Amino acid sequence: MLINLIKPLEANTLLFEILKNDLAGRIGIITTNHGKIETPAFVPVIHPVKQTIPSKKIKEIGFDLVITNAYITRNHYGDDAIKKGIHKIINFDGAIMTDSGGYQVLEYGDVDVLPPEMANFEKGILTDFAIPLDKPTGYGLARKKAEAFVNHTLKVSKTTLQDKEDNGQIWIGPIQGGEHFDLVEKSTKSLVDMGFKMLALGSPVEFMESYEFRLLAQMIISAKKQMPYSIPLHLFGAGHPLTIPFAVALGCDTFDSASYMLYAKQDRYITDDGTRYLSDISVFPCNCEICSKYTPNELRQLQGQDKINEIAIHNLHAIKLEVDKVKQAIYEGRLWEYVIKKARAHPKLFEMTEILFNNSNKLAISTPRFKERAIFLFDKNDQYRPEVMAYHEMVRRFKTKKKIVIILKEPNIKPGYLSQDYFSLKRKFKNIKSIQVCYYNPQLGLIPNEISDVFPAAHHETARVIFHPKDFSEFEKTWIKFFDINDFTEIYFDKKDDFLKRFIKILPKGIKKKSLN
Amino acid sequence: MLINLIKPLEANTLLFEILKNDLAGRIGIITTNHGKIETPAFVPVIHPVKQTIPSKKIKEIGFDLVITNAYITRNHYGDDAIKKGIHKIINFDGAIMTDSGGYQVLEYGDVDVLPPEMANFEKGILTDFAIPLDKPTGYGLARKKAEAFVNHTLKVSKTTLQDKEDNGQIWIGPIQGGEHFDLVEKSTKSLVDMGFKMLALGSPVEFMESYEFRLLAQMIISAKKQMPYSIPLHLFGAGHPLTIPFAVALGCDTFDSASYMLYAKQDRYITDDGTRYLSDISVFPCNCEICSKYTPNELRQLQGQDKINEIAIHNLHAIKLEVDKVKQAIYEGRLWEYVIKKARAHPKLFEMTEILFNNSNKLAISTPRFKERAIFLFDKNDQYRPEVMAYHEMVRRFKTKKKIVIILKEPNIKPGYLSQDYFSLKRKFKNIKSIQVCYYNPQLGLIPNEISDVFPAAHHETARVIFHPKDFSEFEKTWIKFFDINDFTEIYFDKKDDFLKRFIKILPKGIKKKSLN
Repeated sequence: MLINLIKPLEANTLLFEILKNDLAGRIGIITTNHGKIETPAFVPVIHPVKQTIPSKKIKEIGFDLVITNAYITRNHYGDDAIKKGIHKIINFDGAIMTDSGGYQVLEYGDVDVLPPEMANFEKGILTDFAIPLDKPTGYGLARKKAEAFVNHTLKVSKTTLQDKEDNGQIWIGPIQGGEHFDLVEKSTKSLVDMGFKMLALGSPVEFMESYEFRLLAQMIISAKKQMPYSIPLHLFGAGHPLTIPFAVALGCDTFDSASYMLYAKQDRYITDDGTRYLSDISVFPCNCEICSKYTPNELRQLQGQDKINEIAIHNLHAIKLEVDKVKQAIYEGRLWEYVIKKARAHPKLFEMTEILFNNSNKLAISTPRFKERAIFLFDKNDQYRPEVMAYHEMVRRFKTKKKIVIILKEPNIKPGYLSQDYFSLKRKFKNIKSIQVCYYNPQLGLIPNEISDVFPAAHHETARVIFHPKDFSEFEKTWIKFFDINDFTEIYFDKKDDFLKRFIKILPKGIKKKSLN
Repeated sequence: MLINLIKPLEANTLLFEILKNDLAGRIGIITTNHGKIETPAFVPVIHPVKQTIPSKKIKEIGFDLVITNAYITRNHYGDDAIKKGIHKIINFDGAIMTDSGGYQVLEYGDVDVLPPEMANFEKGILTDFAIPLDKPTGYGLARKKAEAFVNHTLKVSKTTLQDKEDNGQIWIGPIQGGEHFDLVEKSTKSLVDMGFKMLALGSPVEFMESYEFRLLAQMIISAKKQMPYSIPLHLFGAGHPLTIPFAVALGCDTFDSASYMLYAKQDRYITDDGTRYLSDISVFPCNCEICSKYTPNELRQLQGQDKINEIAIHNLHAIKLEVDKVKQAIYEGRLWEYVIKKARAHPKLFEMTEILFNNSNKLAISTPRFKERAIFLFDKNDQYRPEVMAYHEMVRRFKTKKKIVIILKEPNIKPGYLSQDYFSLKRKFKNIKSIQVCYYNPQLGLIPNEISDVFPAAHHETARVIFHPKDFSEFEKTWIKFFDINDFTEIYFDKKDDFLKRFIKILPKGIKKKSLN
């Protein structure tokens, strides 16, 4: 069903409703003139003229929002496009986003149309998400030039937003700046101040092609820290299963890409670990309609456009699956586990994890304080997960008047006060009520008995592997703080505990050390 | 097509042909009376009486070998089974393995049939893989009792093998011992000595249920080290996507399980990260026929056996996909990357990685010395991968008469002698021919210029993250050995290189330290 006569959205309709969140990722609903979009959403690129996979098929695979190019549409269809409307032209009855030629500016230096004309055209074709004609900075631009591009884009965006008629179209503010992160910040802040209700982060294509995923992560963080939580963020040209989980975890809600088709043209098959040349595939690591229909040999033997289309359809399924896995991880509160695992797909993806660890405090804001499921703790890096850091913060404020403290390894039964270990202590120490009992876990740090039932102290599963105390700096910080703000005179601990040894050495002077055994 | 009249396999037919290997895993072909089986293969359990998923469907999903229970078949069909043959009874025209009641012994203590009777029955029903009636040790048995069970099983196995007529059936020797790894070793060795051409490792069900994956790994290693490389190994009751990659990497070729159905009965849906209750699923993280046909809500609303069967079919697809992914990883020479990534699915699975690291030397035997693709190095644990250890071994034997050594960070361009860094050295040191140039990489250790093109020195991608020198003990061992067997008097290095600092301190006395800058 094509809807060309559109009613403006009700003024009080919530543009973006957030249903669930984890890290900076969220499940949300964007309401458009052509239906509701559930995010995170991959937005396939549809070519307005040369598209070979019918947009109906794309909808069927599960994409409710596509992006097409208004500039090419204008060049090819002219005013006819305004008569027909973009939905008829690309034959898609879901929501449509239109890029305005910015990509062509980036590729060819300039385009033969002025921003107001493009804005009018985008309005005219009744696109659902419109983007002002920006001037992308791309990558490798000298700072001065990049700044000029950013300023130009901001000026155009401001005019476009002011001139717009509110017919329910969502205007997206294009953030530029590339690897100049201060420009990304400035750009974002200005667009938010102008009143854009959705933003898009520009042109990481070069980051993607050179696998500079770390820069991509830094760029996203630069933008996000200037944005109110309620504004959705689109990421241009970043629709690969490798980066989708990170982009979502860092707060991107939609991301477009033509990769499904571009790769297909080169015989490249998308997997959740990266792309493979079809010639390198012995067994399809996929269950989709294409991979169930053909053996790798059969698919290789197809010819021309047929082959390209079949690979492209597989690629779309592979991307869709990745988005669905990320969504399910958000629902389960295991997005951290998911991205850290995904990072093992490629060493340069792994580099993104350092950005996560260093920005844990920013991710904490939107990570639920309590979760229904246990969190998984594997190695030292998990000391930086937001839920763990939040627990450390709590213990760093934990005050007691007790003078004696007992420190012991966290028992298997949690919370600690229900464990056999605690019952043994009660039998051993008649004055247990005047003793501060603390369990410990390498990642979580000290776990005072009184708050050993607070999430995630009793809601985690930790690998039983060898942990080196020197790797646990958050443990050390909490330890120092705990003994600083309290006034213990005696500590009981297991003198054979190798993990504790390092920390016992840095106890304040004057605390009597006693053996627990 | 049912084949009941069988021709014995040609005497010189290779029972197990290995096509490709990585770590201790391999892609192989087992030739049976009912066709060839490609391994690694998951072997679904078919109930001889109560099966609700037609075996035709199971074949269609892609399983060429199934396992069924000869003991239940005998009790239910009696001599009729011998007239019909097992292939007709379960209506499966591929290869069939029959368990002989050992599982029932484990569950109920004993069965009312003697081993020779069961062996005759298995021959009579023309099964393709027969198992003597063993006495499984399970888990938690005192050593003495476990030993008695092992001895009983060995005795039965010996008689069974001696009495067998060679009609092309493959008799599988059942390894017992449970967590008593010395018994596992003894059991394996004895079965090999008896002449079994295939073995099966018994009863890790208890390990699996309690998630004691580390014990499972240790048990597999105990068995494998007593087995010739050419003998295929079956693993009983271990068909979960979580453990399949590890089981394969440690050298298991086939593994059976009824989990697809048992889980389905509890509304549990298999994912590559573990099982989920259907009620906890918001988005299907799967592309299979079931997950494409229903939304989670629609599947939840099915009733009774319909629902169970649909979940079970999804579960079979999920398991098949995991096996296919593992196969593709073996073809690509990236099984290490695959299992290390998989380990992040659960902290107790992660514990298995320590077993891998500690048994790197055993895995090295069957890991190709040269691979077509670059290997990925993420963190300190990758110093233990077999290809990396092999390179260390080579460098630990590297001798030169040169007296001066230059050590520098591995350049981006590899091999090092083609890098800008090396050209700069050549300009700087006129006597470069009499100087030993070495690059270094934290995982790979020292890389002498002359062998900087040997795999994997020029064929790896290493994450650019912060590495702590104290974590790299293999580097240290190689460093010590390198300076021990050579006779350097001068070393040039970058004095600002934080990674090298630690190792410079442990140089033999008398080596002059000079700055490279």
